[in-house]
Amino acid sequence: MPHINDSYLKLKAGYLFPEIGRRVTAFCNAHPDAKVIRLGIGDVTEPLPPAITQAMHQAVDEMASRETFRGYGPEQGYDFLRNAIAEHDYKARGCEIAADEIFISDGSKCDTGNILDIFGLQNRVAMQDPVYPVYVDTNVMAGRTGAADESGRYEGLTYLPCTAENDFTPDLPEQPVDLIYLCYPNNPTGAVASRETLTKWVEYAKKTGALILFDAAYEAYITDENIPRTIYEIPGARDVAIEFRSFSKNAGFTGTRCAFTVVPKSVMGTTGDGKQQAIHPLWNRRHTTKFNGVSYIVQRGAEAVYSPEGKQQISELVGFYLENAEILRNGLESVGIEVFGGVNAPYIWLKTPQGQGSWDFFDHLLTQANLVGTPGSGFGASGEGYFRLSAFNSRENIEEAVVRIKMLFGRLMA
Amino acid sequence: MPHINDSYLKLKAGYLFPEIGRRVTAFCNAHPDAKVIRLGIGDVTEPLPPAITQAMHQAVDEMASRETFRGYGPEQGYDFLRNAIAEHDYKARGCEIAADEIFISDGSKCDTGNILDIFGLQNRVAMQDPVYPVYVDTNVMAGRTGAADESGRYEGLTYLPCTAENDFTPDLPEQPVDLIYLCYPNNPTGAVASRETLTKWVEYAKKTGALILFDAAYEAYITDENIPRTIYEIPGARDVAIEFRSFSKNAGFTGTRCAFTVVPKSVMGTTGDGKQQAIHPLWNRRHTTKFNGVSYIVQRGAEAVYSPEGKQQISELVGFYLENAEILRNGLESVGIEVFGGVNAPYIWLKTPQGQGSWDFFDHLLTQANLVGTPGSGFGASGEGYFRLSAFNSRENIEEAVVRIKMLFGRLMA
Repeated sequence: MPHINDSYLKLKAGYLFPEIGRRVTAFCNAHPDAKVIRLGIGDVTEPLPPAITQAMHQAVDEMASRETFRGYGPEQGYDFLRNAIAEHDYKARGCEIAADEIFISDGSKCDTGNILDIFGLQNRVAMQDPVYPVYVDTNVMAGRTGAADESGRYEGLTYLPCTAENDFTPDLPEQPVDLIYLCYPNNPTGAVASRETLTKWVEYAKKTGALILFDAAYEAYITDENIPRTIYEIPGARDVAIEFRSFSKNAGFTGTRCAFTVVPKSVMGTTGDGKQQAIHPLWNRRHTTKFNGVSYIVQRGAEAVYSPEGKQQISELVGFYLENAEILRNGLESVGIEVFGGVNAPYIWLKTPQGQGSWDFFDHLLTQANLVGTPGSGFGASGEGYFRLSAFNSRENIEEAVVRIKMLFGRLMA
Repeated sequence: MPHINDSYLKLKAGYLFPEIGRRVTAFCNAHPDAKVIRLGIGDVTEPLPPAITQAMHQAVDEMASRETFRGYGPEQGYDFLRNAIAEHDYKARGCEIAADEIFISDGSKCDTGNILDIFGLQNRVAMQDPVYPVYVDTNVMAGRTGAADESGRYEGLTYLPCTAENDFTPDLPEQPVDLIYLCYPNNPTGAVASRETLTKWVEYAKKTGALILFDAAYEAYITDENIPRTIYEIPGARDVAIEFRSFSKNAGFTGTRCAFTVVPKSVMGTTGDGKQQAIHPLWNRRHTTKFNGVSYIVQRGAEAVYSPEGKQQISELVGFYLENAEILRNGLESVGIEVFGGVNAPYIWLKTPQGQGSWDFFDHLLTQANLVGTPGSGFGASGEGYFRLSAFNSRENIEEAVVRIKMLFGRLMA
């Protein structure tokens, strides 16, 4: 009988979102008439912009004709898309990123997990806490941790607490680390990183030899021009950072699937016998051996994100969700709930009233107001006592959610 | 500086197909007027059937409207597709496979690599030789091997030679193994497995506790009704086999990307402390944590494969490539080249004339006839002296290839 990977047994039961799904399903089954509004999973609700669907229709037509049919494409992505990204996301912002440093994929979730394949198990890993659970779980699966303690923290990982006390901006690690996950705009706290904060991290990485895994899936929500939209706006970052980006949250691709990862050729690692080894060829080997490229139709849709019409439509889409965030923020503040994020970010991070536990607050909100959010503790021990609400929803639902919040918590104002 | 995964350094330079690509590009650059016909990579050439493109157009339209828009779907795939597969690919053939044992993915290449995540490093792995290189390379990357010897065989893997001498049907392993890759119809040899052969493997697995990783990406090419199209046609297989299937080669999805993997709930593994552990929840955890599902648009296209029109159109598509295979076979045989495969399979496996080395034959065919094939040795040591030609091409190109083969090798007949 084959031996399983025993590290899987260390994983705590249920990835966060399936657990939420289970509780919501149970509630809905028991209360079939309840009009549940889901502000839990960060899933977009608005349709794909017309520039994108037009491009995809055209691509489907190309696939229907022998002359224009496309079989296997380059695993790393088509040049038309890699070039568009290099031009619009990097060169236009003064960042020196070449098209062949950009790897098109079907999701940042996959990429942030898969990137671990090319690194040795002995690396010491740091991450923000609370944090996107995939960073943690994929390190556990890879065998880079011991067991979890009662708070859910795994032995062997370095957690960087982000709380209201430090303005959700963690200190540099006290002990040496090799890989550092940073996510800005942050999921789940909605915090953003100033140029000074990012410069501090890049300088730390350069000084200590650490590598930053920078998740910028929400960069489109940055409206403040002083906040960097890519880590490569920081001088020296291309020597010490890999950046993950996605079309999920700017263009609404959560069900369409396209993302990309930037691996600059100047990022280096070390081999077991102490030699320097560029990371780019390793990721290229992994990507070409274990992945077959993103659907041509989807890549054409992603390319349309960069057309003048596409840019305009996406800007409206992002603007719509940011207005939702503002409505949510104002509603929560009006009943005296302490709110963070929701500016330059699609997530509202709130402190649960009266120190309620995150999952208790989840159940309270679900059963009393039929609202689904995400318990902060599901993102890590330092998220306990916090709660995430997502601005990804229709205006009608956001406004209705605010009405229910006011009804439920209005007494706090009294 | 982060430590790299040193196992990557054991990989031989260049995955097979990129190496072919490099040689062809170099030749084309030097001979820009040469009309090169590519029968190397097994990539389809005919357009997507209309039933599929219609379904995808409709899905794009759904994504363009708020009422029908789809965000994140279930990572394991939509029920409409899992149910269609369970019904048409399994129930209709008398196989007991439930929809929730089917995991939709973006490619069998990814799945055959990723499946290793859930198994321990101590497993002893056997595979046919020659073999689809991804099986080998992903085991090397995972750290399950030593270095490669001169013939390209890695220390620690159990190779099962498949040559003309054993009719490309390998013997059972002499030493105990835990995981066995079997690929039927075989890539690259085009060999198929009879019911007796598959029964032999299933009984071996049941007896020894080994797990079969069964790659059936080319099952649509089986026209002989006596040959099983899924390993689950063999009694007991659902206790000892995981099956990989793809829409790439039946429906022409190489550039569209959809596949699936069947993990029966009855397949078991063992933990480090000797307990039995079902494999299904481990793969489910991996799939939901490190993957975000296949594009909704693509899943709707795959669903159309099972409509009456879709089935008819795909049957014609497969029939067309099988006719190509027959033309190629006949052409090669007419000049005295020994040919295998190409019946119930889209690949022709030929013995190189006069014992020429596989790569020498590659260069000979490229430079003298401007034909690209795949060197048998690229698939493993036992492939040396063999060569693969793919039937995936236009009729015109296949016929032109035969003309060139007759011109180049006609002297063999003299």
